[in-house]
Amino acid sequence: MTVRTYRESVKTQGEAEVLDITPLAQKALGKSALQNGVLNAFVPGSTAAITTIEFESGAVHDLRAAIERIAPRAIHYEHDKRWGDMNGYSHVRAALMKPGLAIPFEGGELLLGTWQQLVLVDFDNRPRDREVIFQLVGE
Amino acid sequence: MTVRTYRESVKTQGEAEVLDITPLAQKALGKSALQNGVLNAFVPGSTAAITTIEFESGAVHDLRAAIERIAPRAIHYEHDKRWGDMNGYSHVRAALMKPGLAIPFEGGELLLGTWQQLVLVDFDNRPRDREVIFQLVGE
Amino acid sequence: MTVRTYRESVKTQGEAEVLDITPLAQKALGKSALQNGVLNAFVPGSTAAITTIEFESGAVHDLRAAIERIAPRAIHYEHDKRWGDMNGYSHVRAALMKPGLAIPFEGGELLLGTWQQLVLVDFDNRPRDREVIFQLVGE
Repeated sequence: MTVRTYRESVKTQGEAEVLDITPLAQKALGKSALQNGVLNAFVPGSTAAITTIEFESGAVHDLRAAIERIAPRAIHYEHDKRWGDMNGYSHVRAALMKPGLAIPFEGGELLLGTWQQLVLVDFDNRPRDREVIFQLVGE
Repeated sequence: MTVRTYRESVKTQGEAEVLDITPLAQKALGKSALQNGVLNAFVPGSTAAITTIEFESGAVHDLRAAIERIAPRAIHYEHDKRWGDMNGYSHVRAALMKPGLAIPFEGGELLLGTWQQLVLVDFDNRPRDREVIFQLVGE
Repeated sequence: MTVRTYRESVKTQGEAEVLDITPLAQKALGKSALQNGVLNAFVPGSTAAITTIEFESGAVHDLRAAIERIAPRAIHYEHDKRWGDMNGYSHVRAALMKPGLAIPFEGGELLLGTWQQLVLVDFDNRPRDREVIFQLVGE
């Protein structure tokens, strides 16, 4: 058993852009040469989240529409009043969706479904350079 | 330290059916003979999720009602327009709730609360045969 | 590789109080003397959740307002009709946000962002004595 920690840089556009990071997770798994264990994908910062979705433009659009219903851009946020960076909705969305997800792997393969991709959702209100951590615990 | 990966088959009815999978998690933990560590429950696929709840019919009903408010069945989904399988709401719900959850265990027992059950929520719009993965890392 | 499991007691006020538990997580990490691995924060019970947020009063207020929109206190809950403890909304909120989150650590430091704190959200409708589990797997 061992632990391996990798970082990948990702450029995002923000505003709930959804990026498929499955290839980056697979790359980390390959580098580790681990066969069985768990990959934890985690994005440091309080305005982004990680989940899975069928990564096709329709489902991605629908997810973004649901997020806009849950924490709309155009309502009042106290965070904005106090800090002036106008991304209060980004903070709420990220806290609700959470910054990490663990995916089991076996025989050197992530145990995702065929139409299930690991995605980063960047909720900030501007383009960002994000660092995503892929940490593997396994053997 | 070692890793053990088990699969269990579960028949679901879909439409946000909530199934108590705590006994399956305990079975996996028992088979592993591990005493201390973490059990990661994960459902491959993009229309189901895993969480915990007090598994009684009232709370389950209330959770399903909340999900229907968050991503209603009867609104338009782009996924449906493009793919025709009419389960766009299933995809959105699953992406929001996420497909996995890690539960610590100690002395061979899951550290859940007394009235806290591990559940699979199947958001698809039809009955499914699901495979749930229980992966344990521990000693 | 080893696993270490720590418990911390936390007094909460309930009603979606948000508590910064980052110092408790760091304390557990320090006690473990582990350098690289994953810390899993988990709260037993079905009326509390764990996530991350920029822990400042504005963002905390905004998160609580969003939660009130998602599962309002003043609507009907079946759980209340059946059990009479009037915290049906607490159960729904906790099931949606989930009771655990895994944070990677490296060089003995949690890999959180600079303005990202680990928080416990207590959704119950009364003050509670909570036990939070910090379980570390690493080397």
